[in-house]
Amino acid sequence: MSTILHVQMTEGSVQQLDVDSRLEKHGGRSFIARYLLDHVDPRCDALGPNNVLIFAPGLLAGLPLSSTGRLSIGAKSPLTGGIKEANVGGTPGDKLGRLGIKGIVVSGKAREGIYTLYLSKNGAELVESGEMAKLGTYETTARLLDKYGDHCGVLVIGPAGEMELRGAGISATEDLENVPGRMAARGGLGAVMGSKGLKAVIVDDSGTSAPPVSDMELFKQAARRFAKELIESPKTGKQGSMHRFGTVAIMGPVNDIGALPTRNFSRGQFEGVPNINAEKLRETILERGGKIGQRCMPGCVIQCSNIYVDEQGQPIVSTLQYETLALMGSNLEIDNLDEIAVLNRMCNDFGVDSIEMGAALGVAMEAGLAEFGDGEGARKLLEEIGRGSVLGRMLGNGAETTGRTLGIERTPVARGQAMPGYDPRALKGNGVTYATSAMGADHTAGNAIGSRKTKDPLEPEGTGDLSRGLQQMAAMLDMTGLCLFARPPIVADPDLMIQLLNGRFGWGWTVEDLVEAEDELLRMEREFNTAAGFTPAHDRLPEIFYREPLPPTEAVFDVTDEEMASTIKDL
Amino acid sequence: MSTILHVQMTEGSVQQLDVDSRLEKHGGRSFIARYLLDHVDPRCDALGPNNVLIFAPGLLAGLPLSSTGRLSIGAKSPLTGGIKEANVGGTPGDKLGRLGIKGIVVSGKAREGIYTLYLSKNGAELVESGEMAKLGTYETTARLLDKYGDHCGVLVIGPAGEMELRGAGISATEDLENVPGRMAARGGLGAVMGSKGLKAVIVDDSGTSAPPVSDMELFKQAARRFAKELIESPKTGKQGSMHRFGTVAIMGPVNDIGALPTRNFSRGQFEGVPNINAEKLRETILERGGKIGQRCMPGCVIQCSNIYVDEQGQPIVSTLQYETLALMGSNLEIDNLDEIAVLNRMCNDFGVDSIEMGAALGVAMEAGLAEFGDGEGARKLLEEIGRGSVLGRMLGNGAETTGRTLGIERTPVARGQAMPGYDPRALKGNGVTYATSAMGADHTAGNAIGSRKTKDPLEPEGTGDLSRGLQQMAAMLDMTGLCLFARPPIVADPDLMIQLLNGRFGWGWTVEDLVEAEDELLRMEREFNTAAGFTPAHDRLPEIFYREPLPPTEAVFDVTDEEMASTIKDL
Repeated sequence: MSTILHVQMTEGSVQQLDVDSRLEKHGGRSFIARYLLDHVDPRCDALGPNNVLIFAPGLLAGLPLSSTGRLSIGAKSPLTGGIKEANVGGTPGDKLGRLGIKGIVVSGKAREGIYTLYLSKNGAELVESGEMAKLGTYETTARLLDKYGDHCGVLVIGPAGEMELRGAGISATEDLENVPGRMAARGGLGAVMGSKGLKAVIVDDSGTSAPPVSDMELFKQAARRFAKELIESPKTGKQGSMHRFGTVAIMGPVNDIGALPTRNFSRGQFEGVPNINAEKLRETILERGGKIGQRCMPGCVIQCSNIYVDEQGQPIVSTLQYETLALMGSNLEIDNLDEIAVLNRMCNDFGVDSIEMGAALGVAMEAGLAEFGDGEGARKLLEEIGRGSVLGRMLGNGAETTGRTLGIERTPVARGQAMPGYDPRALKGNGVTYATSAMGADHTAGNAIGSRKTKDPLEPEGTGDLSRGLQQMAAMLDMTGLCLFARPPIVADPDLMIQLLNGRFGWGWTVEDLVEAEDELLRMEREFNTAAGFTPAHDRLPEIFYREPLPPTEAVFDVTDEEMASTIKDL
Repeated sequence: MSTILHVQMTEGSVQQLDVDSRLEKHGGRSFIARYLLDHVDPRCDALGPNNVLIFAPGLLAGLPLSSTGRLSIGAKSPLTGGIKEANVGGTPGDKLGRLGIKGIVVSGKAREGIYTLYLSKNGAELVESGEMAKLGTYETTARLLDKYGDHCGVLVIGPAGEMELRGAGISATEDLENVPGRMAARGGLGAVMGSKGLKAVIVDDSGTSAPPVSDMELFKQAARRFAKELIESPKTGKQGSMHRFGTVAIMGPVNDIGALPTRNFSRGQFEGVPNINAEKLRETILERGGKIGQRCMPGCVIQCSNIYVDEQGQPIVSTLQYETLALMGSNLEIDNLDEIAVLNRMCNDFGVDSIEMGAALGVAMEAGLAEFGDGEGARKLLEEIGRGSVLGRMLGNGAETTGRTLGIERTPVARGQAMPGYDPRALKGNGVTYATSAMGADHTAGNAIGSRKTKDPLEPEGTGDLSRGLQQMAAMLDMTGLCLFARPPIVADPDLMIQLLNGRFGWGWTVEDLVEAEDELLRMEREFNTAAGFTPAHDRLPEIFYREPLPPTEAVFDVTDEEMASTIKDL
C-alpha cells in the first residue's frame, strides 16, 4: 500500500494519506514536480513556511533490483529560485520504498527547536532533537544510528543547512559504511530542510518486505536481464572503468577535450591531472588499504564507490568523486588528493555541496582571499562555514553570492547555481543543459560528455537536440530512481524499462508512454519556473562565457539563441 | 545645438554627435530609456562592457528657471537587474544643459586604469587619473575643483563605485558649498561607472550661455509664473515647511501613520522621533551655526537643503535628509543626529547610497552584527566598506546581498533594491510602487505619502490607480529635470509645463502629448525589463510583508495581485 506522509512542521503533526490519482504514476523527480505544481505558489519564499520539501523515492525503489534506489529530494530552490530536484544514492531511498512511502511532504516551519522524523512500519513520529543542533553530519548520523540501530537509513543536514546557507545539501547514509557519504547536494535543499526545523529523517525498514509486484514473471525476467547486462558490460562490469575507478574515470577525457575547470574556469586543462586522476586515485587507495568497488545502495552490481584513506589507512572520506576532484582540485589548482579529500570531508560534515563550494572557493581565490593551489588556504576558508562567520556564510551561500560580494566577473553559475566539472565553452552540449534545464547548471540534468566521440564538443550546432535528448534521459532516470551509471542497458533497449515498470505496476505502458512521461516532467518543471518568473531571457550563461576564450581550445560559448530555444521547444 | 557625447572607454575615444530624431523629444530619464532600449541588450551583464552608463539632463536644463536642473543618470542596474534611472540635484545638470549636451553615453570598459572626463565648450577629453584611485568623494572633488576651477560641476564615484559594489552611487557638487553632497544614489549606478573605469566627470560651462528658446515670450511668462507660484506657496515659499525643514518635514506624518521604518522594518513608529525630526534638526543646525535654506541647484527658489554642523560649528554633512534619517535613524533605532550625520558623511565619502546602507545595516543588526541603537557599532560596520573587507563588500552590495548572506527573512527590498523610508504595509500605495515600478523599491518613482489625507494609507483598494498616477507624475518630473518639491504648480495646472516646453522647443504640445510621453516612458522601461527577464511574478514584495503584521497598525501588505496588475495595465 503506497502512501504519502504529510509532515506539518508548524503544527508538529504527521499524517499518512493514500496517494491520489494525480500522483499515482509519478515517482521521484516527477512526483516532486507534480506535487509542487499542484500545491505550492511558485513565487513563494523558498526559505519561508509556504515552500515544501519533498522526499520521493523513484518508481522502482525497494525492489530486488540493481541500482534503482536513488532518492529524489525537491523543493523550490533558495539557490536558483526555481524548482529543484537533487537525488542521492545510499540506503534511505530503497528503505522508503520498502515502507511503501511514495513521498514525504514537509510543510510549514517549526515554531522553535529542531526535530528528527522517525519512520518505521509502525508509523511516523517527530522527535525534538535540540541536543543535535549545529552538529556535523558524521556525529549526528553516528548518534542516530546508535539510538535507532545500524539497520536504519539516515538523511541529515549539517550546520550549513541549519544556518539556511544556499549551498547546503542533505546527506544520506551509504550501504556498507553507514556514514553520511552521499549527498543530495545541489540547489540548497539542505537550507530548505533547515528552514523547516528538520535535522534528520530516520528510515527504519525492519520488518518490511519489498513492495508488491504486479506481474512477477515479467518483472523477474527483466530484472535478471538488467543485472546480467550490467555485470557483463565492459563499462559497468567488474573490469569496467566504473567499477574500477568510479566517476573520476571521466577526468582524463574531460581534460583531453579542454573542458576541465581549472583556476576558476579560466583554463580547460590542468597540468596537475596525473596527481588527481582515476589511476592515481585507485593506486593511492589500494596502496594505503582503502577501498575500491564499494556499493552505496543495497543490491547494486556496479559498485563504483571508494573509501579514501590517509597514509595510516584511516578513512578520510567516502566516496571521493569526479565533481569534487574537478571543482576542489583542478579548479583550485590543488593537485593533492589528501588535501582534496580533507576539503571534501569538511563539506560533507558541514553539509554543503562540494561542487558549489569548489566554485565559490575558486571565485574567492580569484579575488585574492587565498592563493590558487593552496590547500591549506582553502581549508581555512572552508572552516569559516563551520564558524558561521560572514566570510563563511558568503562562501556557504555559494558561488553566485561569493562572486557578487567580491565583484568577480567570471563567476561560473547558471540560474544562480555553480557549474559542475565541465566548462561549457569546450563542451557546448553541457552549456545548453546548464542554461535551459529548469535545474540550473547541473550535469545530472543532461550531460553531453558521453557523446564526445560522436559529436564534436566544440561544435555549437545540434547541441539543442543533443541536450534535449539528454534531458529526457535524465528525466527517466530521476523518476524511476535509476542510477546514471546503470543507464546503458536501458538506453540500448528502452523496452527493458517498460518491462520493469509494467512488471511492477501492471500499467501496460509502451515506450511512447515513457517518453511522454519524460516530456511531461520537463514540461511541469518549466511551467513551475515560468510561474516563478523565469523567461527565455534566463536561458543564458553569464555573459563572460560568450566573450572570453578558454585555453587551450580558445573556445567561447557560441550557441545561438535559436539553438538554445530549440532545446525546450514544445515544452 | 544639442549633441550626444559618446565616450568609448575600451578605446578611450570621445565623439560628439548630433541628436537623431528618435531621441529628439526625450530628456533625462526618458532619454535613458529610449537609448537603452534601442542600443543595449537587456540581458547584458550590468557590470560588463556591453552595458552603457548615461548622463542626461532634463528637457529644461540650463535655462533661467527654478528647480529644473536635476540630472538623470541611468544604465541597466547591477542591483535590480532591470533598467535604472536615478537623478540628482546640484550643479552638473544645468551646466550640461548650457553646454548643449543632451546625453553622455559611456560604453565599453577601460582596459586598465581610471579616468576623468573633462567637458567644456571646447570639447571633451578623457584624462588618466590613477592618482585618484580609491580616494573618497570629498577629497576627489576638492582636487578636481582645485585643478579645473570652482566654477565647474563635478560628478564623482568613491571607492565603493571603484569596487563595483551594488550600493554605490554617483555624487554631484552642490551649488553653494561645492562639496559632493548630492547623490544619484539608487540602483548601483556608481558600480557601473566604476566598472567602466570612469572616476569623475567635470562639467566646465565657462563661456556658455543658456540654450536657445523657441518662443521667448511664452517661455518667460511661464517661467515667471512658475517662480512666483513657488515663492508664494505656503509649502515651497520662505515660510513653507520645505524651505524651513527640507525633506525631513515628512518624518512626523510618516511616523503618525505608523509607516516609519523602525528596527529593521519590524515596527512603524519610533519613540526616538523627537530627537531626530524636522524641528530638532532645524533647531540643532541653527543653534550651532549651521545652515538651513540652502539651494543645491542654481536659481532654485525653494532652497530646501541644510548644512549639518558639529558642536563646534564645523560641517559634517550637507544635506541631511529624511530618507537617511529614517533608514540610518529609526530603522537602526539611532536617535542621535550627530551619529546619523557621521554615518551619512561616511556614505557620501565612500560613495554609497545611504538608503541601501541603512537597510543593509538594519539587516546586519537583526543578524546580531551590532546592537540596534548603537551608533558606534553602525559606524564600525560602515568603515568596513572603506576597507573593502568581505564584511564591507557584503554591506556595500546592499540589503539583499546582506540578507541573503546572513539568512535574514525580513529583508526590506523589492527587485533587489532596499525600500526607502515608508513601510509598505502602512502606506500601501508605496508598496504598489515598490513592486510594480521598473525602478524597484524607490519612493521617487511614485510616492503616495502626499495623498495620506485624501486616501487611507492602510486601504489596499484603489492603490493601483493611485500608484499609476504617481508613477506618471514621476515620469514627467524625471524627463524634464524638475525637482519633486517644485511639482505643485505643475500638478495644479499641467498647462504650465506645456508652456515651458513649447516655449523652449516650439513643439506645439498639448497636455495629452505630455501624458502620452509619460506613459511612453513607463512603457519603454517595462519593455526593457521584460526583455531582461522580468514578469508579473516579480511585481511582488518579499513574502514576509504579506504575512507579518506591522505594529502599531498591525497591517500586512494585502494589495491583491489584480490591484497590482491594474497599475501597469496598458503599459
